[in-house]
Amino acid sequence: MPHSSLADRYVIGVDLGGTNIVVGAVAAADGRTLAVRSQPTRSELGGESIVERIGEMVDAVRAETSIEDGAFLGVGAGAPGPLDRARGVVVVAPNLGWRDFPLRDLVRERTGLPTTLDNDANCATLGEWWCGAAKGGRNVIGITIGTGIGGGMIVDGQLYHGASDVAGEVGHMTIDSQGRWCKCGNYGCLEAYTSGSAIATRARESLVADRDGSSLPSFVDGDLSKITAQTVFDAARAGDALAIEVVRDTARFLGAGIANLLNVFNPDVVVIAGGVTQAGDALFDPLRAEVRRRAFRPAVQSCRIVAGALPGTAGVVGAAKTFLMQHERERHTGSFALPAQLS
Amino acid sequence: MPHSSLADRYVIGVDLGGTNIVVGAVAAADGRTLAVRSQPTRSELGGESIVERIGEMVDAVRAETSIEDGAFLGVGAGAPGPLDRARGVVVVAPNLGWRDFPLRDLVRERTGLPTTLDNDANCATLGEWWCGAAKGGRNVIGITIGTGIGGGMIVDGQLYHGASDVAGEVGHMTIDSQGRWCKCGNYGCLEAYTSGSAIATRARESLVADRDGSSLPSFVDGDLSKITAQTVFDAARAGDALAIEVVRDTARFLGAGIANLLNVFNPDVVVIAGGVTQAGDALFDPLRAEVRRRAFRPAVQSCRIVAGALPGTAGVVGAAKTFLMQHERERHTGSFALPAQLS
Repeated sequence: MPHSSLADRYVIGVDLGGTNIVVGAVAAADGRTLAVRSQPTRSELGGESIVERIGEMVDAVRAETSIEDGAFLGVGAGAPGPLDRARGVVVVAPNLGWRDFPLRDLVRERTGLPTTLDNDANCATLGEWWCGAAKGGRNVIGITIGTGIGGGMIVDGQLYHGASDVAGEVGHMTIDSQGRWCKCGNYGCLEAYTSGSAIATRARESLVADRDGSSLPSFVDGDLSKITAQTVFDAARAGDALAIEVVRDTARFLGAGIANLLNVFNPDVVVIAGGVTQAGDALFDPLRAEVRRRAFRPAVQSCRIVAGALPGTAGVVGAAKTFLMQHERERHTGSFALPAQLS
Repeated sequence: MPHSSLADRYVIGVDLGGTNIVVGAVAAADGRTLAVRSQPTRSELGGESIVERIGEMVDAVRAETSIEDGAFLGVGAGAPGPLDRARGVVVVAPNLGWRDFPLRDLVRERTGLPTTLDNDANCATLGEWWCGAAKGGRNVIGITIGTGIGGGMIVDGQLYHGASDVAGEVGHMTIDSQGRWCKCGNYGCLEAYTSGSAIATRARESLVADRDGSSLPSFVDGDLSKITAQTVFDAARAGDALAIEVVRDTARFLGAGIANLLNVFNPDVVVIAGGVTQAGDALFDPLRAEVRRRAFRPAVQSCRIVAGALPGTAGVVGAAKTFLMQHERERHTGSFALPAQLS
């Protein structure tokens, strides 16, 4: 697709997560976002409700931007995996209660626009690569750390999906083969140590072992069940020794996982996004030190490890970009239904 | 390069390892090997001696095959890394005692043929993909388990090198972040548990803990220092319970590492080569079971885990193929000096 055809063209990005739905218009030429809006997913209302509300949000974005209809190339949607991209289906999404849900076609029917579907963590990685902290990278790993851990891989400037769309599940690398149980059924996964909920769990465990002197309980009025990763970061910033130790351990575990990725995949950028980046240098400094300690020097020297630069919108921007990249690929094979004025 | 131009053309493959040098003629059309020969590396004689003996082996291959000189396209060489492929230099090779050794240009000068250089484990992976157990794969991981562990990755039918030629160092994934020390300086690397020397070490440790009833010492006349991985496999085959347990543990550790690769890279083939494959089903059955237990189901279902099919020649065949692939790529960019009759 020649660049000129992208001027004044837009894609609507949809980032569907277990907590929020985010929708916005994305300029096809440079990834600028317009009219971004967000609402709670409320998965308990069911899949039809989610599709309808995505449709309403798309309508609202179109109304707010006053962009003529013909300028919208289509919709790029990101959703939790595993997905079957060929069929546009969410195979299993525990947080949404979905099995074999044909999200792509339902969104296409509701919006009347060509629609593509990809994994949400893939989209976030692609967004950071197109417009954010991973810009200029050729081989990139994106790690999104929220309640769980998602990941995406870019190889030679293209999203890499692997043999069955599983690629990039970096949260489910074993870093301790006899270690903590993980929800995936495995033991010792990175996610079992460094996801937001794992950080909170480890802090609670430390308090059970020795609560004396820690200010952490005071951040949650003494109710330890209310501790989140954010509470731990706040307490660490306030100088609480126990919280600082939990953050440092998080950095060590993450460093071990990222060192694995450097030795196996040798990327030029690792971009870390999600709530955990709010811990800032308290996390990133010991994390980078651990990677230096564990990975091969040429792999360390050729890789920057950075925090995401598009909090809240990386998924929307990347979902739009997956649409554009798929669009470009399939234009050559003739298998993609384009709006008439562009084909 | 059209296929027809490869008929009756040959590349000489050179597989330089810490133990042996293997050289043979490889048919460019289909990877058939001719006149393969091997001799001990004898690195103590120095780099010049190695280059001279490679030259003599190449001369001998040419003489034995009676192929006319013009039919040889060039030499593909594989050597232990890390390498600088652009400069054709072996950056560090502890087993050879080399630092910044310009192997590619020295072999080119000695043989008078265009020469390429790539990592030995990359070459072995490519050989198995071209003509062996990984044939037909699109995204492939090769693991060569000898004294150490080497690895190579094929993405979309091309060798993947990463940002600085480190990619594929699968032996240096952490599977136990507080685990056994590894020669690379890290702790808990896969290699520290499942390389040939690590298998022997773990067997010796088990014997120190409890020697009663094991027949393993009788395989080495009571001299435990003589135990090798091969001894352990032999004793396991003879029914020794301690040796069987060491093999099973090896399968579990390898399974954890390979599950990581399935979840992150989602390959369609993992091919395992090297002496360890002689353990056969006693290793592969529990290994596959461990991978099933640890990796995501769609990743397991789309991947076959197989033993290499080209023992002794995968490196030579793959080294020749790296030459052909680089040749093909650089023909398009005009940066490759071809014999006149082909350019």
